[in-house]
Amino acid sequence: MHSTDHIEIETIIKNWVIAIQKRDIAGILANHSENIIMYDVPPPFQSVGIEEYKNTWEQSFFNGTESGVYKVLEMTIEAGIDIAYCFGILQCSWNNNGVFEDIKFRLTIGLKKLNGKWIIFHEHHSIPSN
Amino acid sequence: MHSTDHIEIETIIKNWVIAIQKRDIAGILANHSENIIMYDVPPPFQSVGIEEYKNTWEQSFFNGTESGVYKVLEMTIEAGIDIAYCFGILQCSWNNNGVFEDIKFRLTIGLKKLNGKWIIFHEHHSIPSN
Repeated sequence: MHSTDHIEIETIIKNWVIAIQKRDIAGILANHSENIIMYDVPPPFQSVGIEEYKNTWEQSFFNGTESGVYKVLEMTIEAGIDIAYCFGILQCSWNNNGVFEDIKFRLTIGLKKLNGKWIIFHEHHSIPSN
Repeated sequence: MHSTDHIEIETIIKNWVIAIQKRDIAGILANHSENIIMYDVPPPFQSVGIEEYKNTWEQSFFNGTESGVYKVLEMTIEAGIDIAYCFGILQCSWNNNGVFEDIKFRLTIGLKKLNGKWIIFHEHHSIPSN
């Protein structure tokens, strides 16, 4: 039996993924803090604040990522009273020199509850590096 | 003014880094769950459970990482009542075909408080990937 907080966070992630699939920037940002710090798969090393976070998505769409296949394969949610984190494995399609390839990547998310609403303050996306 | 929880977690991370510098495996594992899931900089894609987590450190030391320079450059700690996460930038020295190079990497940590003690259940280490 999952808590209300668990279900709320699950819904936020579900809606975020749907927004990515639709390339709906407003939907992608709907539950994010102005002060988000994001570590992405490609450079830069980090994106600080909502504008830089937004730019990574616009860049990703411009690069021709096939956003329609963006999906969550597995996700663990640890929701407390006012702090939560999630981690799991996602899949997207990546434009590798003109050829789209499905890749799996790792994602960790950090959230805080403000005025009764869960907000994403941190995202860490990566693949292993040789 | 930081909360007691904030200070406790800060101390856990500080002691974990000291243990890495000393190659002290027991110290590295001192505040980790049996069920930790770790995403590391090098492959594998994920390490599940404390044995696999431990193996990544033994492998790292075997590979000749200069653990003495492992250090935290910056770290944000978000501690709730029973769930916490941290993220920041660390530095280590990496054996790149026989030449040691300082590299910066991103780290996110997820913790749960069990019986009054903060335990690490998740770590995500990465560098950007081109």
